[in-house]
Amino acid sequence: MTYPMGPNRYGKSGIRLATVARDGDRHTFRDLDIEVRLEGAFEAAHVDGDNAAVLPTDTMRGTCFALARDGIDTVAGFARRVADRLLVASPAVRQVTIEVVAHPWERIEVDGRGHDHAFRPAPGGDQVIVLTQPRDQAPEIQGGARGVRVLKTTGSAFSDYLVDEHTTLPPTRDRIMATTVEARWGTTGPDVEHERLATAVPASFAATFAEHDQSESVQHTLHAMGSAVLDAHPELTWIRFRMPNEHHNLVDLSPYGLDNPNEVFVVADRPFGVIEGVVARDGVQPPELPG
Amino acid sequence: MTYPMGPNRYGKSGIRLATVARDGDRHTFRDLDIEVRLEGAFEAAHVDGDNAAVLPTDTMRGTCFALARDGIDTVAGFARRVADRLLVASPAVRQVTIEVVAHPWERIEVDGRGHDHAFRPAPGGDQVIVLTQPRDQAPEIQGGARGVRVLKTTGSAFSDYLVDEHTTLPPTRDRIMATTVEARWGTTGPDVEHERLATAVPASFAATFAEHDQSESVQHTLHAMGSAVLDAHPELTWIRFRMPNEHHNLVDLSPYGLDNPNEVFVVADRPFGVIEGVVARDGVQPPELPG
Amino acid sequence: MTYPMGPNRYGKSGIRLATVARDGDRHTFRDLDIEVRLEGAFEAAHVDGDNAAVLPTDTMRGTCFALARDGIDTVAGFARRVADRLLVASPAVRQVTIEVVAHPWERIEVDGRGHDHAFRPAPGGDQVIVLTQPRDQAPEIQGGARGVRVLKTTGSAFSDYLVDEHTTLPPTRDRIMATTVEARWGTTGPDVEHERLATAVPASFAATFAEHDQSESVQHTLHAMGSAVLDAHPELTWIRFRMPNEHHNLVDLSPYGLDNPNEVFVVADRPFGVIEGVVARDGVQPPELPG
Amino acid sequence: MTYPMGPNRYGKSGIRLATVARDGDRHTFRDLDIEVRLEGAFEAAHVDGDNAAVLPTDTMRGTCFALARDGIDTVAGFARRVADRLLVASPAVRQVTIEVVAHPWERIEVDGRGHDHAFRPAPGGDQVIVLTQPRDQAPEIQGGARGVRVLKTTGSAFSDYLVDEHTTLPPTRDRIMATTVEARWGTTGPDVEHERLATAVPASFAATFAEHDQSESVQHTLHAMGSAVLDAHPELTWIRFRMPNEHHNLVDLSPYGLDNPNEVFVVADRPFGVIEGVVARDGVQPPELPG
Repeated sequence: MTYPMGPNRYGKSGIRLATVARDGDRHTFRDLDIEVRLEGAFEAAHVDGDNAAVLPTDTMRGTCFALARDGIDTVAGFARRVADRLLVASPAVRQVTIEVVAHPWERIEVDGRGHDHAFRPAPGGDQVIVLTQPRDQAPEIQGGARGVRVLKTTGSAFSDYLVDEHTTLPPTRDRIMATTVEARWGTTGPDVEHERLATAVPASFAATFAEHDQSESVQHTLHAMGSAVLDAHPELTWIRFRMPNEHHNLVDLSPYGLDNPNEVFVVADRPFGVIEGVVARDGVQPPELPG
Repeated sequence: MTYPMGPNRYGKSGIRLATVARDGDRHTFRDLDIEVRLEGAFEAAHVDGDNAAVLPTDTMRGTCFALARDGIDTVAGFARRVADRLLVASPAVRQVTIEVVAHPWERIEVDGRGHDHAFRPAPGGDQVIVLTQPRDQAPEIQGGARGVRVLKTTGSAFSDYLVDEHTTLPPTRDRIMATTVEARWGTTGPDVEHERLATAVPASFAATFAEHDQSESVQHTLHAMGSAVLDAHPELTWIRFRMPNEHHNLVDLSPYGLDNPNEVFVVADRPFGVIEGVVARDGVQPPELPG
Repeated sequence: MTYPMGPNRYGKSGIRLATVARDGDRHTFRDLDIEVRLEGAFEAAHVDGDNAAVLPTDTMRGTCFALARDGIDTVAGFARRVADRLLVASPAVRQVTIEVVAHPWERIEVDGRGHDHAFRPAPGGDQVIVLTQPRDQAPEIQGGARGVRVLKTTGSAFSDYLVDEHTTLPPTRDRIMATTVEARWGTTGPDVEHERLATAVPASFAATFAEHDQSESVQHTLHAMGSAVLDAHPELTWIRFRMPNEHHNLVDLSPYGLDNPNEVFVVADRPFGVIEGVVARDGVQPPELPG
Repeated sequence: MTYPMGPNRYGKSGIRLATVARDGDRHTFRDLDIEVRLEGAFEAAHVDGDNAAVLPTDTMRGTCFALARDGIDTVAGFARRVADRLLVASPAVRQVTIEVVAHPWERIEVDGRGHDHAFRPAPGGDQVIVLTQPRDQAPEIQGGARGVRVLKTTGSAFSDYLVDEHTTLPPTRDRIMATTVEARWGTTGPDVEHERLATAVPASFAATFAEHDQSESVQHTLHAMGSAVLDAHPELTWIRFRMPNEHHNLVDLSPYGLDNPNEVFVVADRPFGVIEGVVARDGVQPPELPG
């Protein structure tokens, strides 16, 4: 029997595109990982095997490379050009989504000066732009960050929590707190400088992570980070964090006749806590957490 | 300044729990990876650093291990016991979500017979149960599969698609089609035998993948797989697939003066197509695609 | 200042080559990951930037694809053809090494019968062939296996070991033993059926892993596995194993007032033990362990 | 039948140990991944299941944690203390090998100043120390680096190479060169400051990678890097590099009617070239390449 199609989409992932821009001898290197998704009237392809409306995913790749030839001034601007083109190319499409992860590189230092054309991966994580472009409507652009790993060796506690019969965790007023932040944020409108925010927002929340010295929990620090970001960046309407708790557990050295005054830790992989939350300006309706 | 918390949740990931059940000398081995999430009234923890309502994520781990002591008859049943317990333990909780990935093992064959207590990972991918348990309401249980890798060397075409100025892909009436299926399905109600479906549903869609010999696209086969599953398993109300197109590209051997009649392929990693879609019974409202 | 080159080699890794062979409607699918290395007189390339003797690594890729056009009867035979060709193509080469990892696929079962042209990854790990081909000498071919994951729920002990002031591990007479075997073996000569051994040797050592029921340690079982393989396969002169000890630790349920009679285990990732050893026939000089 | 044991060793991998040292409010954070290997008279464990001489791998873990309690002044010094202790603890041991990978962290910058106790992963790769300690002999200590990723957008060529019938690669006088360097080096003796070299050597070879502007190949740059390191660091007797060629291929935009003057590149994953080589001082006998 044949059944109707419910929600569906398709596209290309893992489009690894790099560009070199030249200002005389001084080069700029961009390194992008692009994902394209199309939603629209594609029932015939599924139900009847009729590909007449289907733009190949290989063409999405080609579109990205061809449009990159004009240079990538900003990632958000480039994403808009790709989305606009795909709406033209594929009449069946109702909405295009472009997600770009930019891997930042920094100049290799030689004789105390950043080199003109040699680079290494920059610290501080990757930058994310997610463009949602419905046909005949204004696009929505979210900014984000991935892989922002941070750790503090003091200024973090976890105590006075709910205890039941399965609770064995000892409370602590001084622990290592470590996480790899994934962040996503909404913005006020079309004139936002996403390129600047891509580095400024992570710098803001990493600084707050460092300075929030009476942290009672990952949740507590998450909220402080969100509040600091909204204070510092009026263009942001909300920010969402996903913060795994990368446990550094104090090693029990008493079997060896030793104390351990917060000096020796074992870095645990699994299991790990995960804290997710959105901090939003009053009156703003942020999106739900991802499923 | 302080800003209000929007949507938030927390929990434990990567709880790796294995059990051995003994029927005389014949052992059964279970190997689970469990994720727990709590949603509820946790604003005070975020905003004020007040942990009074916060059950530690370490306690969620402990709860899983303690409840496993009574045996794991079915994964869905175990997930319900854990969720029920956490609702009791944590009054602030509005909803518990338990996601279990079961890694299936099969008996090592010795002298033509499955061994009593020695195992190896079974082929065919992992099994998923996702339980959503709101306080004072019936739970929802979705089944799923991950990592179901399949490949066919003929019976797959892709041609007669939309062509624009960025399209260079040549059409083909005979190609390799390969994918690693991720599936999720909804069911009719509380008496569904999830344990049986966990192997029967992937067997159904893998067989259809194999037999669907006039495939015009991944989309076309996805719909055929969904239809076959709904035909074979009346307990399912909808099924969602995510199917990356793992490209095996015909190698151009003409530079070496050779033809290549569908014999030599290069296995490509990136970029890759991704096809997602839900097939649903008439009148059923399936969930949206995940964000 | 300029310094002399010491040992050096170069080549191509990650050549992902798949082939389809057709016996009427019944297809055979091969899926290989090939690594090529050349050693020889390449000082000028390093010291002077003179590429005259350097065959591009891209040409090694092309050579593999071109030679695959004649079909891949056996992996070892194909590796020999590639090595022979590279010795002809590159006069500076003193020795070619070809390492092939074959990913085995099995037929998808439909209506109780293996399908003609649809496949899924087979259980039991990958197959390895390492060919070392010096110019003007006989080649050496080693066979191997990777990723052979096995687990037993009883029949394994670890006790009566050396104890010092840093030893806290409790002895046990009944534990879970799990490992992912990596094996490599030497053979008697040119007429060995490597294709058959690639499945027969792992089957032998997995069966011994299962049956070796008075195991006192991973070391003890490693030696039993090696002895069984040498008994069963006269073509092998030695076999080397690398066996990580994938710890499944008994969970201490006493904080919850529960016992744990070998029923509930936590699967640990790190740290993990590693046991490596060679079992060899009398009078055979096996190679050293890899550095 | 029973066969003799050939070469064998055992130990613990993945010992993840972190320490915090305090100079008042200014903290120092160390993050180590330690691997221990013992070689010696362990035939009885393998052949007879006699564990009397076997120090558990869990004890090696315990030894690392216990000895870390005295602080880790230098990684090399800590490795020597662990090795010395294991020689005492396990009389059957002939040789101990300790390999430590140190993940470097840098201070998070807040208000233009490195924070006292908050850190993020530093750019530039990981640091390696490999100590080989035979009983009753002087130890050998090698230094190393892993994951030193570098890229240059010009100053690299590959042309005038050997061409055969399978060569299709076009020559280029201007390309992107990218690699992730893995390095290992030998030193003159016991008084070498390994801690300083761990950052100084990668800084040297990364600078040479940047400045070597008439690069004719990866081989050519490898040799220049090695020569520069030996010039700058008289304590080093040899240095070995493993440099994958991380291909950034110029995209052919001609199907879209566009040129591509070295501006748009596709980042390829596989296959990839691999160049390995040792640069040594005259008269020094460096070790062979690893198998």
